[in-house]
Amino acid sequence: MSLKVYLSGEIHTDWREQIVEGAKDLDVTFGGPVTDHAASDDCGVAILGAEPDKFWHDHKGAKVNAIRTRMGIEQADVVVVRFGEQYKQWNAAFDAGMAAALGKSLIVLSRPEHQHPLKEVHAAALAVAEEPRQVVEILRYVLTGALPS
Amino acid sequence: MSLKVYLSGEIHTDWREQIVEGAKDLDVTFGGPVTDHAASDDCGVAILGAEPDKFWHDHKGAKVNAIRTRMGIEQADVVVVRFGEQYKQWNAAFDAGMAAALGKSLIVLSRPEHQHPLKEVHAAALAVAEEPRQVVEILRYVLTGALPS
Amino acid sequence: MSLKVYLSGEIHTDWREQIVEGAKDLDVTFGGPVTDHAASDDCGVAILGAEPDKFWHDHKGAKVNAIRTRMGIEQADVVVVRFGEQYKQWNAAFDAGMAAALGKSLIVLSRPEHQHPLKEVHAAALAVAEEPRQVVEILRYVLTGALPS
Amino acid sequence: MSLKVYLSGEIHTDWREQIVEGAKDLDVTFGGPVTDHAASDDCGVAILGAEPDKFWHDHKGAKVNAIRTRMGIEQADVVVVRFGEQYKQWNAAFDAGMAAALGKSLIVLSRPEHQHPLKEVHAAALAVAEEPRQVVEILRYVLTGALPS
Amino acid sequence: MSLKVYLSGEIHTDWREQIVEGAKDLDVTFGGPVTDHAASDDCGVAILGAEPDKFWHDHKGAKVNAIRTRMGIEQADVVVVRFGEQYKQWNAAFDAGMAAALGKSLIVLSRPEHQHPLKEVHAAALAVAEEPRQVVEILRYVLTGALPS
Amino acid sequence: MSLKVYLSGEIHTDWREQIVEGAKDLDVTFGGPVTDHAASDDCGVAILGAEPDKFWHDHKGAKVNAIRTRMGIEQADVVVVRFGEQYKQWNAAFDAGMAAALGKSLIVLSRPEHQHPLKEVHAAALAVAEEPRQVVEILRYVLTGALPS
Amino acid sequence: MSLKVYLSGEIHTDWREQIVEGAKDLDVTFGGPVTDHAASDDCGVAILGAEPDKFWHDHKGAKVNAIRTRMGIEQADVVVVRFGEQYKQWNAAFDAGMAAALGKSLIVLSRPEHQHPLKEVHAAALAVAEEPRQVVEILRYVLTGALPS
Amino acid sequence: MSLKVYLSGEIHTDWREQIVEGAKDLDVTFGGPVTDHAASDDCGVAILGAEPDKFWHDHKGAKVNAIRTRMGIEQADVVVVRFGEQYKQWNAAFDAGMAAALGKSLIVLSRPEHQHPLKEVHAAALAVAEEPRQVVEILRYVLTGALPS
Repeated sequence: MSLKVYLSGEIHTDWREQIVEGAKDLDVTFGGPVTDHAASDDCGVAILGAEPDKFWHDHKGAKVNAIRTRMGIEQADVVVVRFGEQYKQWNAAFDAGMAAALGKSLIVLSRPEHQHPLKEVHAAALAVAEEPRQVVEILRYVLTGALPS
Repeated sequence: MSLKVYLSGEIHTDWREQIVEGAKDLDVTFGGPVTDHAASDDCGVAILGAEPDKFWHDHKGAKVNAIRTRMGIEQADVVVVRFGEQYKQWNAAFDAGMAAALGKSLIVLSRPEHQHPLKEVHAAALAVAEEPRQVVEILRYVLTGALPS
Repeated sequence: MSLKVYLSGEIHTDWREQIVEGAKDLDVTFGGPVTDHAASDDCGVAILGAEPDKFWHDHKGAKVNAIRTRMGIEQADVVVVRFGEQYKQWNAAFDAGMAAALGKSLIVLSRPEHQHPLKEVHAAALAVAEEPRQVVEILRYVLTGALPS
Repeated sequence: MSLKVYLSGEIHTDWREQIVEGAKDLDVTFGGPVTDHAASDDCGVAILGAEPDKFWHDHKGAKVNAIRTRMGIEQADVVVVRFGEQYKQWNAAFDAGMAAALGKSLIVLSRPEHQHPLKEVHAAALAVAEEPRQVVEILRYVLTGALPS
Repeated sequence: MSLKVYLSGEIHTDWREQIVEGAKDLDVTFGGPVTDHAASDDCGVAILGAEPDKFWHDHKGAKVNAIRTRMGIEQADVVVVRFGEQYKQWNAAFDAGMAAALGKSLIVLSRPEHQHPLKEVHAAALAVAEEPRQVVEILRYVLTGALPS
Repeated sequence: MSLKVYLSGEIHTDWREQIVEGAKDLDVTFGGPVTDHAASDDCGVAILGAEPDKFWHDHKGAKVNAIRTRMGIEQADVVVVRFGEQYKQWNAAFDAGMAAALGKSLIVLSRPEHQHPLKEVHAAALAVAEEPRQVVEILRYVLTGALPS
Repeated sequence: MSLKVYLSGEIHTDWREQIVEGAKDLDVTFGGPVTDHAASDDCGVAILGAEPDKFWHDHKGAKVNAIRTRMGIEQADVVVVRFGEQYKQWNAAFDAGMAAALGKSLIVLSRPEHQHPLKEVHAAALAVAEEPRQVVEILRYVLTGALPS
Repeated sequence: MSLKVYLSGEIHTDWREQIVEGAKDLDVTFGGPVTDHAASDDCGVAILGAEPDKFWHDHKGAKVNAIRTRMGIEQADVVVVRFGEQYKQWNAAFDAGMAAALGKSLIVLSRPEHQHPLKEVHAAALAVAEEPRQVVEILRYVLTGALPS
C-alpha cells in the first residue's frame, strides 16, 4: 500500500519539510505547488512574454501554475491543505474545493483562530489537524495501522 | 434556452438582489446559499441538538448547509462567486474550486484590490467582473446575444 | 428550488408518512422502496416463476426490487436512511454506501443505542437525526432557510 | 494479469489470513481496513485530540479510517465483504454498497443463516461464498483458469 | 415516479405493442429503434447518397440508426432486450452490453432454448422473462408495488 | 421522443435557418452560438472593459462565448458542425472535438472539396452531409422513422 | 508506448495464439476470457456448489467469469472481438457493446458472410478485419507507424 | 513527479524533435500521432483492403489512426497542439477540443498571424506559445520550478 499526497497551501513556513521528513520511512509520494514565491508569480511572463497589465501578468502565471497544481490534485489520494497566518489564501481554499469535488481525502491543517471561517472547508475534510506532526501520524496510521505512542 | 445560475459568496450586500432584478426579463433560475447569517450559523444545532464545543457547533451547521450549497452548485450551469470587502471568505473560494472541478462556467465578481490574491481563482473563471450589472450583461448576452447599448 | 428525496431503510413504522406529511407544504418529491413486506419478498417469483431454493427465490426478488431502489437512489438529491429497532438492516447500510459513493447528500435517521456500530455510516452523512421531525426541519431549512421556532 | 483485492468486513477471525495464505502463489495484491480493533476505534482522538462526547470520538476515528477504506475500495478490482457471526456489521454492508455503486466486482462471504437479510447485498454480488477457501478458488480461477481439483 | 423504458431487439413480432398496451395505465415513456425493417436498412443511403459496396451501404445506415439507439439507451432507466426466434440478433446483444456498461437496469426477454448462449447476458440482467406480460408486471410492480393477482 | 440539437460552425450563410425551418414540425429544440459576428467578437470588452492588446480583447470575448457554446454542446443530444467555404474555422473543428469526447452524436455538414482535411472529423461523426436538407432528413428519420420520399 | 489489448469472443480456433505470436516483438499485453470451454461453463458450481437447475448452474458460472471479462475490458486500451463460424456468440456482441459504451477502441474480426448482421457492431468499431494477421498489422502500425511491406 | 505529454498537430517541421531534445533531462514521456504522412494517409487500406472511393479510403485510415491518437490524448497529462503555416489543420483543432473536453492541460503552439481564428482554442488553453523552446520551458518549470535564466 502506498499513498500519493498533495501538499497545498501556505508556502512561507517549513510545514512541507516537516511532513516529508516525518514520513520518510513511509511509502508516500509527495507533490505540491512550486514554492518559490517569485518564480511562481512570474513564471507566465518569464516564459511567454511580458504583460504591461498586472491582471494579465498574473493570469499567465496562474495558468502555467495550474498545469502543475490541477494535475497534482487529480493524481493524489490525499490532499492536505494548510492555512497559515498571513495573506488571503484563497488559492488554498480553492484547492480544497477542487479536492472535495473530485472525491479526494481532504486533510486540513489550520489554526484554532481560523476555526469559524474555515467551517465549510472543515466540513468537507476527513481530518482537521493543527500540527504537521499530526498529518504524519495520520499518514502512518493509514498506511500501517500504528498509532503514536 | 434557459440558464441555472448559482450565486455564491458574500452575503452582506444586496448584490444578489441587483442581479436577480436586472435579469428578471431573462429565462434564468437563480440559486444560492441561505443568506440569513444567524440561521446559517446555527442551523445544525437548532435542528439536531446543541453542542458545547464551537467546532462541532459549526461542523453540524456547515454540513446541513452543504446539502443546499453542493446541490446548488452541481445543478447550476453558471456559478457566480462574489468576493466582498470583509471576512476571510474561504467558503467563497472553496465553492469556486468545486465549480471549477465540476466543469461549471465560473464568473468571479471581485474588487480590484483583490486581483493578486485571487489570481488562481480568476485563472479558472470565464469572466471576471467588478459590478453586478456586468454579470447581468453577461447573462443577457449569453441568452440573447444582445450587448449593452 | 425543489428536492428529490429518497427514503431508504426500515419499513415497519410510519416514519415515511411522518416525513411526507410534515413536508407537504414544501417542494419535495419523495421516493422509496416498495414497503409492502410480503410483496417485496415475493415479487421475483410471483412474476418470473417459482424457485424451490430459497436463495434463488430471494435473489429474483432482490433483483426486481433493485430496479426500483437503485434508480431511486441515483435520481435523488438527498437520501435519508432509517435504521430501526429490529432486524439486520443490511440493505439500509448497503443503500447508504451506494448513496455515499454516488455523492448524494446522506441523512441518517438512527437511534442513540446504535451510535457506535453506525459510526462509519454517520461519518459519511451530512446529518444524523433521531426523529423524523428533524428530517422535515432539515428539508424545510434547506429549501426555505427557515429554522424551527 | 494481476488483481487488486480489498478484504472488507469482519475483523475477529483469521479469514483474511486464510485468503492471503491460500493465494500466495497468485499475482494478487491485498488491501483492507486496519484490523486492530482498539486502534481503529481510537485513531481519531489519539492523533487529533480527545473528545468528551462519544459521538465525536467515534466520528473522528471513522473519518480517519475512511481515508484508508475508501481509497482501498476505489483502487480495488475485486471487493470481498465478509459478514461474520457477531455485531451489527453495518460498515461491511456500507462497504458493499460503495463497491456496487463504483462498479467493482463484489464477492460476499457470508453464513447460510444470514441468507435472507443479505439478499439485497447478494443480488449485487458476482459470487456468494461461505468459506475463505472458495474466495481463493475464485481468485485462482479468474487469474489462471484453473478449477479446484 | 415515472420510468423511461427502451425496448431493444427483435422487430418482427408485436411484443413492443403488447408491452405498451399492457402498461398504458402506468407512468412509463417508451423508446426503441425504428422498427420498419426496410427503412432501417436503407436510411443511410436514402438520405446521404447511394453506396455501391454493401458494407458501406450498411455502415451509413447503422450509424444513422445509432443516433437514435444510443440516445435511447443512454436516456432510459430500464432497457428491455428481446431475443426472438430468428436471425443472428447481434445488435440486441450489443445493446445489452451497452446497457450493462452504462449501469442501466437490464431486463432480458428470451426463449428457454436460448438459455445457455444467453447466460452472460442473463448474468448482467436484473430480470429474465419469457413473456411480454411479465415485463409489464415488472414495470407495474416497480412503479406501484402491485403484484399480479 | 424529442431531440436537443446544437448547430455549431459557420455563421455567414442561412444554413441554420434552413434546418430550423425544415424541422419546424418536429420535436426538436435548437441551440447554437451567437451568430452576430460583431457582437461575438466584442462581447468581452463591451461588458468587461476594453483591452489595448488584441490577444486579450479576443480572449475575453472567447471566454464569454464559451459560457454559451460549451453549455450548448454539453446539453445537446446531437451536435451538427458546419464547415463553410471561408476562414480557418478552427472553432468548428474544436467544437467537433468536444462533441466527440463528450460522446455526443456528431453530424458534419461539409463540402466535397474539404473531404481530405476533414477525414479525422468525419471519422468521429455518425453522418456526413453536404446539404442542410439532409440534416433535416436525418432528424426526421431519427424522430419518426420516415425517410424522404 | 504500450498497449493493453483484450481478445474477446470465439474460443474454438487459434486466432488468439496467432495474434499473440504475431505481436510478440511489440509492447502489447494481452488479456482475454478463460478459453477452456468446460472450465468456463462449470466454474460457478465447481467452486460455489452444485445447482440442479441449469439456469442457475450457468448463472453462477457466468458471474464468476464476469469478474474476469469485465475487468479485462475495463482495463484494456483496445478490445478485439472475434465472431467465428459457429454458435450464437451473443457474449461476443455483448462484450462489443460494453467496449463501445466504455469508449474503448474496438476492432472486430469477422467473416464476410456476417457483414449484414454485424453492421451495428461494425458501425461502433474503429477497424473491421477478416484475418488475425490484420489485427497484428494494426497493433504494429499503432505502436510503431510501420505498415506491412 | 513525471509528465505524460502528447504532441498533436503539424507534422511537417521538426518542432516535436526540438521539444523532445530540449526536455531530454526531464522526467517526461512523449506521445503523438504517426508522423509519416504517407503511412498515416494509407494505413487503413494498406492493412484492411483497398477502397475505390476516396472518402472510404480516408475513413478507414482516419479510424485506424484514431486508435492511437485518442488513446494518446486520454492518457496524457498535458496536450500540446501545434498549428503550422499550411493546410487546414482541422485535426489539430479537433484534438484540442477533445483535450479541453477531457480536462487535459492544453498548451497551444501557434503563430501570431493565427491569433484571431484561434481565439476559441486559446481561450481553452493554459498557455499559448510561439516557439517550441517555450514549451520546453513550461515543462521544465512545471516539473522543477526552474525558470529560464
